[in-house]
Amino acid sequence: MTAEYDLPDAERHPYAWGNAGTPGTLPQAALGALAALGAVPTAPPIPPAEADLPPCALPAAALTDLTDALGADQVSTAHATRVGHTRGYSTPDLLKLRDGDARDAPDAVLYPGTHDEVVAVLEICTRHRVAVVPYAGGTSVVGGLTPDRTGFAGVVALDIRRLDRLVSVDEVSHTAVLQTGLRGVVAERLLGEQGWTLGHFPQSYEMASIGGYAAARSAGQSSAGYGRFDEMVVGLTVATPRGTLTLGTAPRGAAGPDLRQLVLGSEGAFGVITSVTVRVRPAPQVRVFEGWTFPSFTAGATALRALAQDGPLPTVLRLSDEVETAVNLADPDAALTGPGSGGCLMITGYEGTKDTVARTRDAATERLRALGGEPQGHEPGEAWRAGRFRGPYLRDPLLDAGALVETLETATFWSNVEALKTAVSTAVEGALTEQGTPGLVMCHISHVYETGASLYFTVVCGRSQDPLAQWAKAKEAANTAIRACGATISHHHGVGRDHRETLARELGPIGVDLLRAVKASLDPAGILNPGILVG
Amino acid sequence: MTAEYDLPDAERHPYAWGNAGTPGTLPQAALGALAALGAVPTAPPIPPAEADLPPCALPAAALTDLTDALGADQVSTAHATRVGHTRGYSTPDLLKLRDGDARDAPDAVLYPGTHDEVVAVLEICTRHRVAVVPYAGGTSVVGGLTPDRTGFAGVVALDIRRLDRLVSVDEVSHTAVLQTGLRGVVAERLLGEQGWTLGHFPQSYEMASIGGYAAARSAGQSSAGYGRFDEMVVGLTVATPRGTLTLGTAPRGAAGPDLRQLVLGSEGAFGVITSVTVRVRPAPQVRVFEGWTFPSFTAGATALRALAQDGPLPTVLRLSDEVETAVNLADPDAALTGPGSGGCLMITGYEGTKDTVARTRDAATERLRALGGEPQGHEPGEAWRAGRFRGPYLRDPLLDAGALVETLETATFWSNVEALKTAVSTAVEGALTEQGTPGLVMCHISHVYETGASLYFTVVCGRSQDPLAQWAKAKEAANTAIRACGATISHHHGVGRDHRETLARELGPIGVDLLRAVKASLDPAGILNPGILVG
Repeated sequence: MTAEYDLPDAERHPYAWGNAGTPGTLPQAALGALAALGAVPTAPPIPPAEADLPPCALPAAALTDLTDALGADQVSTAHATRVGHTRGYSTPDLLKLRDGDARDAPDAVLYPGTHDEVVAVLEICTRHRVAVVPYAGGTSVVGGLTPDRTGFAGVVALDIRRLDRLVSVDEVSHTAVLQTGLRGVVAERLLGEQGWTLGHFPQSYEMASIGGYAAARSAGQSSAGYGRFDEMVVGLTVATPRGTLTLGTAPRGAAGPDLRQLVLGSEGAFGVITSVTVRVRPAPQVRVFEGWTFPSFTAGATALRALAQDGPLPTVLRLSDEVETAVNLADPDAALTGPGSGGCLMITGYEGTKDTVARTRDAATERLRALGGEPQGHEPGEAWRAGRFRGPYLRDPLLDAGALVETLETATFWSNVEALKTAVSTAVEGALTEQGTPGLVMCHISHVYETGASLYFTVVCGRSQDPLAQWAKAKEAANTAIRACGATISHHHGVGRDHRETLARELGPIGVDLLRAVKASLDPAGILNPGILVG
Repeated sequence: MTAEYDLPDAERHPYAWGNAGTPGTLPQAALGALAALGAVPTAPPIPPAEADLPPCALPAAALTDLTDALGADQVSTAHATRVGHTRGYSTPDLLKLRDGDARDAPDAVLYPGTHDEVVAVLEICTRHRVAVVPYAGGTSVVGGLTPDRTGFAGVVALDIRRLDRLVSVDEVSHTAVLQTGLRGVVAERLLGEQGWTLGHFPQSYEMASIGGYAAARSAGQSSAGYGRFDEMVVGLTVATPRGTLTLGTAPRGAAGPDLRQLVLGSEGAFGVITSVTVRVRPAPQVRVFEGWTFPSFTAGATALRALAQDGPLPTVLRLSDEVETAVNLADPDAALTGPGSGGCLMITGYEGTKDTVARTRDAATERLRALGGEPQGHEPGEAWRAGRFRGPYLRDPLLDAGALVETLETATFWSNVEALKTAVSTAVEGALTEQGTPGLVMCHISHVYETGASLYFTVVCGRSQDPLAQWAKAKEAANTAIRACGATISHHHGVGRDHRETLARELGPIGVDLLRAVKASLDPAGILNPGILVG
């Protein structure tokens, strides 16, 4: 059963999202709608081979030490490799690379093969004052791979892809030890061969790695059933510039603060997570996905809340607002038009044994009907399931077509969900309109908790002359609205550089100093991802 | 329905556990068994009024500033008040106080009435270099209230009992804001009046406070259904020597590490938690408790694991080993004899709506039967429920009778549970036998997770001439066994002073330095509970 999630091994596209073999294409109708938004097709991207890449600045002595430690074949300064490790996949990141700007590239890319080699690299880089970007799947959308070079002799990307083993499965404890360079899709395949699943399916599933899940506190699309990645982790091994930190002696405990929760979300700024012990579950026998419609976002959100608070909780539970429901980008006939009259689409998914799926589904169905839902059968559920990792593939053709498209997300407590949604939508719409490029702001809830939920926004508009500045204004408006509502700057994308200042406002000076103190303790020379998470 | 948990307001016993109005009494049969263990009744405790209390060492200037800040009536140096805030409730703590040793008493006891007054106290104490013991319910059993005075001008207990308000309930988000001086029983009463429950019932329920639950990562007897206290907390307000730290903008998120999990378990060493936002649930309509027997601990543990991993999970789920099952201290006819032939007693409890209780109970019953359980009906369940907070009351009469009795606990992953149980039991039995006082070691599992469980040990033996040294040897043997098994030094009692060195071995030097760095950031002068959690 897990085979359906076993996507082809990705041959990464050189500058666009995802697997080069399965590029996204826009439905014809969408192109018309984009034209109406003022989008004008742009010049094709500059090929990476022609990108503006600064010469390798790494001191020769550092390069020698790194080569001695890892072997010459595991240290690359090749143009394509350096450009391929430049930044992540935010829209600003893509825009820069499409423009041939690879000025944030690392000076070299390192491929350590063991935990001890990672420790050795950190020691060498500390000694030579070289900044280190821990690099797993490379899918950051918040500037998590763009460190501040100031004061450093150079920057290396520490690519952990060779740490790719499923080390062990404890069938009694329902845990597995995974090296963190494993891509999610490969980890799932290896676990599936032994009858287990991690159950973690973020939209970046094809590209992202276990290390990124951990470092960025990832939440997968099945979080209602399987929990967030930070809830799955029971142990971590972390390479720090001071040596190895090992955490996790029991599922839960009272032996002081839970330091695991300090490493989860540390985004490579405190250390390099080289392996994790995670809770696994028996691979599901059955998977069922269905669609529901609700007359309004309010009615749908109330139903989500009822299931989150009183149960039963499906494995997947998500709700698109009116605009997103109308603008179904995965639909070949989609027209990118405004709000339709189709209400709001909810997707429910159930995974588990035949019995548990039947029982949960029956009970949830009864409740959703009572809460005003109209069942739409399997088709919308299966359509969502089939396209669940395809959304990001559409961004590149949208950029080609002259649109600006980006996503952002937040979370809050239930009583604040509607106010937050309105505030963020209004702020972003206002900032775009002010710049003469009014756009569409779509929203969905994809993660629910007893006390609250996430909100995920997708923004599409025509591109201005300076799309980086254009988006920066919209994003700043969103951040300000999020802060004003008392919500969090990130539910699952993380902090990186892009959210650092807003996080500082969220935590206050004492909280920021706390993060700085933690970093200084583990990384005294500050070589790890400088400027990421905390300044 | 919550009324049954609404215990009488405690008038605290001056030197024994719990409510002075409901002292524990030993069953007659137990006294004979104790004699067989070599226990000889001891001289009665020295009354607190006659305890050896050092004079108040607080500098006059500090006392003046504190009195100015709080009012003279909220600063006490009275003998009874100081003795009443001396140490906690570990057996060594009780033994010392019974012997009239109040040398660890604070010099003064402070009763701030607001968060701002707590901040002011911390500022004053930083200035005068006075150590501060944050004091909530006072029920630490790990030396959490016995700071190291070295280098300080004095020690004050900061008793937060006046911070006793249920501030608000958010009926939509299912959250409540509680001040942390609220005793658990009062918080439950106030929430119950509005139809809600926290669902947190540790054995210290009558005495412990919300602040202690948070600071020590408490786990209640209903943790299977309601989760641990650290899982209930979604927000915290913390007074630190540097000012106020406020955490919790969403149920869960990816805005960096979860700093809430750094404050939870900080045991007063990082700050004083003055209020928490917690998830609450509708007060249950129905509560059902039942007993089951399993032929062996192994069979019972396997059944617990099956429910924890595949469900359904009752609200309360616990399993006594063969010895604890035979020695039921709550039974008036209990004889404190060795292993019986009655197998192992499991308690299952179900709380919720009539429907959910019926559904969960039916499914759990079916599974437990299939797993080899013999249903024993309501009687054992109700007996456990009636006595659930009474266990600690028996310790004082046991001490009177010349026994040494103490508890300790740990947690590990499922595949390690049996090895850990054997190792700890063997170590403690060996250490006691070596000292000529062989004893009984009983064990139960009271908290289960998908990946593992807690183990709770109760030890009874005859008292030697130097019971403090006697217990120290047994405890050190237990700690060493726990470490050798790779388990945690505490599942829910915490660290305090007693577990500090073992925690250091558990975390390693990098982890310990991390805790020190966090403390130094929040409490630069190190006035908060010095020597607690981290040295």
